Amino acid sequence: MSRRSFWAWGLEQDEPTEQQVREAAARLSQRYGVAVEPVMPPRAEDLQLRAPRISPPSSLAAICATDDHDRAVHTYGRSFRDRIRAYNLQFPNPPDVVAHPTTEDEVTAVLDWCSSNGYAAIPYGGGSSTVAGFEPPEGYDGIVTVDLSALDQVLEVDDVSRSARIQAGAYGPGLEAQLRPHGFTLRHYPQSFEFSSLGGWIATRSGGHYATNHTHIDDFVESVRMVTPTGVWESRRLPGSGAGPSPDRMAIGSEGILGIITEAWMRIQARPQYRASAGVTFPSFMAGSEGARRVVQAKLWPANCRLLDPGEAQTAAGMDGSRALLIIGFESSDLPQDDNIRQAVAIARDAGGTIAEEDIRISAPGDRSDESSGGDTGRQGAVGAWRNAFIGAPYQRNITTGMGLVAETLETAITWERWPAMDEMVRGALQETLDRVCGGGSVSCRFTHVYPDGPAPYYTWEGMGRRGAELEMYAEIKQAASDAIMAAGGTITHHHAVGRLHRPWYDQQRPEPFAEALRAAKRTLDPNGVLNPGLLVDV
Amino acid sequence: MSRRSFWAWGLEQDEPTEQQVREAAARLSQRYGVAVEPVMPPRAEDLQLRAPRISPPSSLAAICATDDHDRAVHTYGRSFRDRIRAYNLQFPNPPDVVAHPTTEDEVTAVLDWCSSNGYAAIPYGGGSSTVAGFEPPEGYDGIVTVDLSALDQVLEVDDVSRSARIQAGAYGPGLEAQLRPHGFTLRHYPQSFEFSSLGGWIATRSGGHYATNHTHIDDFVESVRMVTPTGVWESRRLPGSGAGPSPDRMAIGSEGILGIITEAWMRIQARPQYRASAGVTFPSFMAGSEGARRVVQAKLWPANCRLLDPGEAQTAAGMDGSRALLIIGFESSDLPQDDNIRQAVAIARDAGGTIAEEDIRISAPGDRSDESSGGDTGRQGAVGAWRNAFIGAPYQRNITTGMGLVAETLETAITWERWPAMDEMVRGALQETLDRVCGGGSVSCRFTHVYPDGPAPYYTWEGMGRRGAELEMYAEIKQAASDAIMAAGGTITHHHAVGRLHRPWYDQQRPEPFAEALRAAKRTLDPNGVLNPGLLVDV
Repeated sequence: MSRRSFWAWGLEQDEPTEQQVREAAARLSQRYGVAVEPVMPPRAEDLQLRAPRISPPSSLAAICATDDHDRAVHTYGRSFRDRIRAYNLQFPNPPDVVAHPTTEDEVTAVLDWCSSNGYAAIPYGGGSSTVAGFEPPEGYDGIVTVDLSALDQVLEVDDVSRSARIQAGAYGPGLEAQLRPHGFTLRHYPQSFEFSSLGGWIATRSGGHYATNHTHIDDFVESVRMVTPTGVWESRRLPGSGAGPSPDRMAIGSEGILGIITEAWMRIQARPQYRASAGVTFPSFMAGSEGARRVVQAKLWPANCRLLDPGEAQTAAGMDGSRALLIIGFESSDLPQDDNIRQAVAIARDAGGTIAEEDIRISAPGDRSDESSGGDTGRQGAVGAWRNAFIGAPYQRNITTGMGLVAETLETAITWERWPAMDEMVRGALQETLDRVCGGGSVSCRFTHVYPDGPAPYYTWEGMGRRGAELEMYAEIKQAASDAIMAAGGTITHHHAVGRLHRPWYDQQRPEPFAEALRAAKRTLDPNGVLNPGLLVDV
Repeated sequence: MSRRSFWAWGLEQDEPTEQQVREAAARLSQRYGVAVEPVMPPRAEDLQLRAPRISPPSSLAAICATDDHDRAVHTYGRSFRDRIRAYNLQFPNPPDVVAHPTTEDEVTAVLDWCSSNGYAAIPYGGGSSTVAGFEPPEGYDGIVTVDLSALDQVLEVDDVSRSARIQAGAYGPGLEAQLRPHGFTLRHYPQSFEFSSLGGWIATRSGGHYATNHTHIDDFVESVRMVTPTGVWESRRLPGSGAGPSPDRMAIGSEGILGIITEAWMRIQARPQYRASAGVTFPSFMAGSEGARRVVQAKLWPANCRLLDPGEAQTAAGMDGSRALLIIGFESSDLPQDDNIRQAVAIARDAGGTIAEEDIRISAPGDRSDESSGGDTGRQGAVGAWRNAFIGAPYQRNITTGMGLVAETLETAITWERWPAMDEMVRGALQETLDRVCGGGSVSCRFTHVYPDGPAPYYTWEGMGRRGAELEMYAEIKQAASDAIMAAGGTITHHHAVGRLHRPWYDQQRPEPFAEALRAAKRTLDPNGVLNPGLLVDV
């Protein structure tokens, strides 16, 4: 099997071919009116990392790797910054050791080794972070990245309560493959699905498949088991509780600073049998936004309720660029969704949306249409096209890496009444900075999730920069957009997490007494300060 | 206006009359075959409390009360133990001062006064705790109870995002009365609704109106503002976020140990216009339980989904005691609920439930049936009867207080696959202890809330004890039931909170590292340890 690429999304076999690079260079040259030179990506053989500064004790040697490739793979996530640095073979501060524990006892042993020596211990799930969530810290004599991917089993399935005990290192596809024979699915499909893990989803409050109601992984966690330097943190399996502040909600989103999540009981779903969907178009993004607001405030709880602005509807769903597209989808294991989709469409039409009656798609068990085929006629064609673009996007980004393009996504959430002002501020900040830094560029937006009290907007932006100067240009644009989000009253992240990237804005956002409480908690659980240092708080 | 009763649920005017006492004594005599003597309840004039040991500074004197009545009212909640002790005029450790701040600045000033002098500062909402959530601690030179009820305003209503900024001291009825002119409702109706406050609901993770999906107040909190001894804790108003562990989820359920909640932005609802309900009967509680499980696992999210065992169906809903009753109800501001109720009834019937077609009740705007009238025909009659019994229950308990009856409720939550065993264990423990301690007694159960992964069962028990020995008898029964809940794997509370009453079992339940984190957080935010000492953790 192909190894993971040390710089690109996916495996080495997913790295761009020479032909792809040439085509992309030509495409960018045409789009931006500059001569973009096709340069071939780096090779793993060119990696030259700092020699490991520490060696694992003999008891752990069998599960520890120190070769350059493994350490490079575990240095960066897959944000724009990460890909650029890896592509440029810039690895000034890689982990010294990558541990691959195969049991919880081995996780504990690795953590003990780090804690007693003051080495940074960095939990690693699937490596998909876009916020430098596991990038090694400066100032440590030793850095040990703890890759949980060998802990990848679904250990128990409770089909009465519809829960499963799953090891933290299970990646999306493997986890689903193990649930499938039982007739269940977790149904958590972040864009990183292929290369992200259950533990990573929990540690970062990942946002998934469901666009309304239960949007984050948070709502699917029944209990968490986490190894800390001072003992095992394990909550009771409960469908609900009111006993003090939720222990799970303190572990969820803790980004590896309090402990290493080793397993969790998760609420699982029966596989959907009934589906209904509709792509409703609107004359503008704000008109579509009003449609989305009314649908979600009616509490129909569609599984999908994603709004694409005219730009995204054009590039991702093949529309003409003049109208926004609101994709509404229902699904159920047990019940026909005909009435739900008709009620939602009626609300969307009442808000000014347009859809032909024959473009409302409804399917029942036995129909040919299933979740992997979106259909190919009418508006459903746009829905299906968008879905394919979503899954393929990270691979597309591989191809243009290193050509001078500066491009990224960013996401937030805001209450509805402040949303139009936020959109103006964030788009304005992005466009103004792109114009100044890159001499122009594009900005588009969609809603990934919507709540009765507000949307989670997701911006995509790009501009043509200068090869070699991408990181500085990126930093300026990211700063302007993040400052705008803060000024508008939003959150610096809805589901990408904080990491090192968002710390400056996170520090403005969280209540200071809460930060003090979190610092105190970390000092108590991790007295030597070895767990993912620099994330969320400084201690 | 009538004052609050110092011992009974409600106001002084709600205390039982001589005739009610005589009738209750006769009824109990007949039911238990013993001679129960009618004794008249205590009078406020008989209160003799320890003199206040401290005096407020002159700057706070205007908002501080030290009279016996006010201090007695603020000593106990309204559990069985509380009513017995208050009824018996046992107030060995009342607060010395009851502060009634009218502004957040006054809350801060009171807290500063307590913190700098080492006086216990105990937040008080509506006084409805059943778990000794605000009972004064031993070992303090001064005890100041901080009654938030003057902070009772809805400060802002955002009708676009459907949120409202509400002061923590607002009681249920006042809060709803202020939202009503805007066309909104919080729709949080715990049984304590009349005498409980928003801040109390948040601090205790109150469970409310909705029986499925968003059951706890937790899900309706958009942001919390809390005064701590080290500064103000205020989260951003956000519809959703993934930025670190949720600050709100640490404040929610903190039971006054980290700070005093002064206001919150809450997610509010448009008033329901469409309703549909059905009371489906089952041959047994476990058969009904299977029906409830299937309905909630189909994710129809009914607003009501409460299952009464045959005993409760008889006493609370006028049925014949041979069958369990599953009450299913849907409501919506915008959409007819016909299809939802029909789908739910079909599932319940498929699970062995029975309901006549004409007993499925559906109402639309303009129909005479509304939320205050449950109808009076067919099964709907049972639904309406149950609703009245629910609201009236706390007043009924006043009447039998002090006659020797030992009676209480307790609640938990458990995953479905362990539920039948838990029911056997908890009923067994209760019945066995009632038989031994009281020479017999009754036990019944209902579900107050249901989740896809398990129910929240709510037990009601009573036995005839000996006047004067009620507290010892109670303690033995409570211990046996709580031990059974722990052994069965449940939570010591689903929505009544921990308080002093549940601490021993809470300590068994929460992960030890989480308790360490919470202790560290408390030590940091409340360095002098004055906030509601002894709740949740010892520091």
